Amino acid sequence: MRIALDAMGGDYAPTPIVQGAVQALRCDADMLVVLVGDQAQIEPILANAGAGDVRNRIEISHASQIISMEESPAMAFRKKPDNSISRCWQLLAQRKVDAIVGAGNTGAMVAGGFLLRLFLKGVKRPGIAALMPTQNGLSVLLDVGANVHPKPEHLYQYGVMGNIFAKHILKIDKPKIGLLNVGSEEDKGNELAKVTQELFRNSPLKDQFIGNVEGRDINRGVCEVIVTDGFVGNVVLKVCEGVFDFVMKAVAKEVMSTLKTEIPLAQLALQNILKRYDYHELGGAPLLGVDGICMICHGSSKERAIENALNVAAKHARAGLNELIVKELAARAPAAAE
Amino acid sequence: MRIALDAMGGDYAPTPIVQGAVQALRCDADMLVVLVGDQAQIEPILANAGAGDVRNRIEISHASQIISMEESPAMAFRKKPDNSISRCWQLLAQRKVDAIVGAGNTGAMVAGGFLLRLFLKGVKRPGIAALMPTQNGLSVLLDVGANVHPKPEHLYQYGVMGNIFAKHILKIDKPKIGLLNVGSEEDKGNELAKVTQELFRNSPLKDQFIGNVEGRDINRGVCEVIVTDGFVGNVVLKVCEGVFDFVMKAVAKEVMSTLKTEIPLAQLALQNILKRYDYHELGGAPLLGVDGICMICHGSSKERAIENALNVAAKHARAGLNELIVKELAARAPAAAE
Repeated sequence: MRIALDAMGGDYAPTPIVQGAVQALRCDADMLVVLVGDQAQIEPILANAGAGDVRNRIEISHASQIISMEESPAMAFRKKPDNSISRCWQLLAQRKVDAIVGAGNTGAMVAGGFLLRLFLKGVKRPGIAALMPTQNGLSVLLDVGANVHPKPEHLYQYGVMGNIFAKHILKIDKPKIGLLNVGSEEDKGNELAKVTQELFRNSPLKDQFIGNVEGRDINRGVCEVIVTDGFVGNVVLKVCEGVFDFVMKAVAKEVMSTLKTEIPLAQLALQNILKRYDYHELGGAPLLGVDGICMICHGSSKERAIENALNVAAKHARAGLNELIVKELAARAPAAAE
Repeated sequence: MRIALDAMGGDYAPTPIVQGAVQALRCDADMLVVLVGDQAQIEPILANAGAGDVRNRIEISHASQIISMEESPAMAFRKKPDNSISRCWQLLAQRKVDAIVGAGNTGAMVAGGFLLRLFLKGVKRPGIAALMPTQNGLSVLLDVGANVHPKPEHLYQYGVMGNIFAKHILKIDKPKIGLLNVGSEEDKGNELAKVTQELFRNSPLKDQFIGNVEGRDINRGVCEVIVTDGFVGNVVLKVCEGVFDFVMKAVAKEVMSTLKTEIPLAQLALQNILKRYDYHELGGAPLLGVDGICMICHGSSKERAIENALNVAAKHARAGLNELIVKELAARAPAAAE
């Protein structure tokens, strides 16, 4: 299992990124990590991390340039041909690695794969899948930002890929699939939602398709796969993060100012919740539909998030997720596309 | 102050709707409410509510039909010409009332105004404005569902109307206006977001426009007016509701199972939060841009939500919100439209 890690990607890169790789390597003897980035910065971090025990499973691929979090991907790729994100994708395209992981500029991570057209057979547009905590466990929301102008057939394919993901990664027998919309009735929504709904209703997935779901249904866990366009999905993902933060802060303030002797116990309870729903624990979001495994991490990822993302990338590669997606896309083409 | 209330609208109608009107009338001696709906159902509720003290400020406008929560508005208007929602709008159009309030089918509430083209001078498309709790107080998000296929100039007008709302209702001196997008950088987003951003940057509102804001910025209170299309806004509003519920349930479970002697204190703290952010307390969402005041309430509204919505409708009418919007739209047309 060989994974390229963008050592320069993320708000805190490179130190915690490299440290996360060392941690992951210690827990998975079959993993090899190619650290992509500035060799002069990476070497001392490895030395300080006391990575001697796993150093033989670390390679460094020197890339002299970094795409910052704010840069426009198209412009950045032109101006910085030797950037660490493009290098990760090249390693994947050349089959030198099985997976890539990065916490840098999300747009650039996605665009890197799109530029190389490194798509799985049958896939029209890859999409980012995010895990959402629900009252029943986890569900998968896609796309959360790869494709802000999708066509109905792209959304249908997200349903197919999300179905495979929920089945083989979340281990859900027959996942229910919902289309995120502004109401549950059939005639609701914008044109994209209406046409997409028709596609699902006339497809081989029709038995698993539960129709429209609303924003409030996501955390209720009414379905395990929620399909939406990349604009809405990205906003939803960040709104969830924002509301979670907001409510937890309000709770901490109100509860702590009310309790007298049991404040430490309440703090422990709140920490348990923070830990349970922390994105660091979820290990990044896979870009499904590319030929190889690509995990996109939160910009504020530190050691633990990177370690988890590397583990998840290895898990997806070992599960043969992509082979299953190719097979399923061929078998589940919607009626209109046949 | 005369307000038409759809007595038949909402999941629990008509009893708590009528009771809410009675409560509101008791607190506002200058208010008169026209209860719109089935007279045979409304009369006994009034009798049971002991509404004798305010009965002289209650009129009943009999409407024999009800549009259900699930019905398609277009179809319902054709099949049920004597429905309570259309009657409310007719009363507003005939200037028999200053405001209308309803907790029924949101799509039908909006469509009623659109069908009559009861728009304020200069308004291209009305939009629903929702109050969002933030770390600094309240902000206003619009549109949350009136217009799922907006043009950039519609979104610009939402900025103008939201600005007036934040200034005169939320009492914020110079509200900051943000465009909801998938990233803070200028080149982010779909075509609608890109063109809308240009409009704002070249408009008389440019000094108040802070550019793109992300989902997680809403509750942080980075701006007091957040502009978005009705599809995204509606999903966001419901996601907020869903995450809030989800987190509060998780907190209640975890905290209560951890504490030993101070459970009642913690319960009190959580109830305070629930009450503070309860949509029932916010009193519905105004449909801004119609010629008259229209408050759209949550489908699950009970007495308290209706009472508050009636109070808010009266407040908006008295503040002369619409006159201010017409004046501002004329003064703040974007460069491209001049």
